[in-house]
Amino acid sequence: MKDLHALGIRFKDGELYILDQQLLPQKEVLIRVKDVDHMVTIIQGLKIRGAPAIGISAGLALARFSRGMNDRDEVRAMALKLRESRPTAINLMLVIDRMLAHLTEQNFHSLFEEEAVRAFDEDVILCDRMAEYGTELVNDGDGILTHCNTGRLVTAGVGTALGVIFKAHEQGKKIHVYVDETRPLLQGARLTAWELQQAGIPYSLITDNMAAQMMKAGRVQKVFIGSDRVALNGDFANKIGTYGVSILAKYHRIPFYPVAPYTTIDFTCESGDAIPIEEREAYEVRGARGSFGDVCWAPENAPVCNPAFDVSPVENVTAFICDKGVFSREALKHGALKNL
Amino acid sequence: MKDLHALGIRFKDGELYILDQQLLPQKEVLIRVKDVDHMVTIIQGLKIRGAPAIGISAGLALARFSRGMNDRDEVRAMALKLRESRPTAINLMLVIDRMLAHLTEQNFHSLFEEEAVRAFDEDVILCDRMAEYGTELVNDGDGILTHCNTGRLVTAGVGTALGVIFKAHEQGKKIHVYVDETRPLLQGARLTAWELQQAGIPYSLITDNMAAQMMKAGRVQKVFIGSDRVALNGDFANKIGTYGVSILAKYHRIPFYPVAPYTTIDFTCESGDAIPIEEREAYEVRGARGSFGDVCWAPENAPVCNPAFDVSPVENVTAFICDKGVFSREALKHGALKNL
Repeated sequence: MKDLHALGIRFKDGELYILDQQLLPQKEVLIRVKDVDHMVTIIQGLKIRGAPAIGISAGLALARFSRGMNDRDEVRAMALKLRESRPTAINLMLVIDRMLAHLTEQNFHSLFEEEAVRAFDEDVILCDRMAEYGTELVNDGDGILTHCNTGRLVTAGVGTALGVIFKAHEQGKKIHVYVDETRPLLQGARLTAWELQQAGIPYSLITDNMAAQMMKAGRVQKVFIGSDRVALNGDFANKIGTYGVSILAKYHRIPFYPVAPYTTIDFTCESGDAIPIEEREAYEVRGARGSFGDVCWAPENAPVCNPAFDVSPVENVTAFICDKGVFSREALKHGALKNL
Repeated sequence: MKDLHALGIRFKDGELYILDQQLLPQKEVLIRVKDVDHMVTIIQGLKIRGAPAIGISAGLALARFSRGMNDRDEVRAMALKLRESRPTAINLMLVIDRMLAHLTEQNFHSLFEEEAVRAFDEDVILCDRMAEYGTELVNDGDGILTHCNTGRLVTAGVGTALGVIFKAHEQGKKIHVYVDETRPLLQGARLTAWELQQAGIPYSLITDNMAAQMMKAGRVQKVFIGSDRVALNGDFANKIGTYGVSILAKYHRIPFYPVAPYTTIDFTCESGDAIPIEEREAYEVRGARGSFGDVCWAPENAPVCNPAFDVSPVENVTAFICDKGVFSREALKHGALKNL
């Protein structure tokens, strides 16, 4: 299998490596993945995250660790373990299902590899296309708000929402990015800030609860945001906090654009109501943990809610930026995604 | 001067003590205030916070440290130092101005003491009145969202918004409180959670960006929130994040009630546009610091915005709960506060 190189995922000399996103930006550590259980731990521990990257790395893990296995039931069990490691990311299911479709074939090992590599290569192209569509909407001088991390770390390419920002900057557009820190896991403060800093793009880090004030102060002209799953009616699931931002943008009449590849569309899902929301562990909300330290500021055992995602309704979407094109709210409501 | 006892402020044997709110809930430490500069440091370091408590403790500090001083210019300079220690809290200015009005009198020392004690005693009564008005709006079974900390720590009495919650619980109403953690300084996670836990009131701690999801899920029936300054038209300033919550509540048609004593009304301020917003230091947004530890998760020197407050428009207010009564949005818009 050929070598592959993305910021967060590497395949080299037949081994799979993941850049540990929990340790960024303080430390850059590549983990060599030992087996499928290890990969599941890596996914669940959010060392790799973002719907495209989860799907791609799980596919590569399945290809890597099913190598030489002939018991198809064991291979299927391995695949299902990966498939169930995160409940919201649709890409994960898609990649694994595509691979499993080859399981009955004689040469499933090489077909697995082909599918896994294809998912990687395809993602690079998808990112470029989304970035091209998205940048057409960016004006010189725009302030852009984003949430969570949707950049090079979460795809094989330039990113989704952050890819639009990278591309606009490359084109010489003067932009300023407002980065929601994205509690509880701080993907904005740790990862988006780091990616923007590396790219030399001007930004300001804010706490999530400052987004409304930035909008009121006239500093935000556009919102570009990722998506973990898009329903056929244009509702979409994304990192917790996205739904709130969608309401704030609507209130301030600021265009709000989810950016995601077609692999994020769930063709079995009619509306956002059907998307399950993952509830994560309490310690994440009681404090913060990472290579920067491990602190608990709330009373010990404080009861918490910790939904990892929320669902934003199509009513709050200005347009969905996909590699297949830009779909306006009206087009989404009229079923544009059903015909893809 | 008589002894005074509140959760956050004590006056005992002629000395002023402040409970260090930066160390809660991990440590309970009383600081003996040494001089006015020390008191300014305590206020600016947020060891004491909340508009009523800042005003009361500054008044007590002025009475305590002007004792024996006869140079009125020096006393005035001391008073102005305290008056300017936080720009948003109107109560602070009010208490100091009331005291300074006596400066030309022969016995200003004892008049200072009387005013400072009066501010304390009055606040206890104001809290009780607000709590009584507020609880009439609470139904059995309500989920209540609150932001920042507005309890016993920030007043001489039972609190403002949190006072309503304490009172409803005392009356046997079954309530569940959703506590915004309130980044960057985590007053919700550290202080409100601690106060509710001590009072045995059921609550769930959430990150600020989960408020919208809690509302959508039908868990929130009311929002009670504090205020640092109320303009004559009903606009009000409060902890950063309040404005966003006001928009989310409006979107979900959930009643939204600021709770504050009349001492919080700025009778010189026609609308929220005139309220200055304090910008605080960058390190607060880059990480978190307290008795729980000192962590920086963002890239070092990440550029940040850090407005400490925001202003919510009267359009988003269902009613303002004051010790003088409950003022509906319509009443506020028709100038009800001007006639107080």
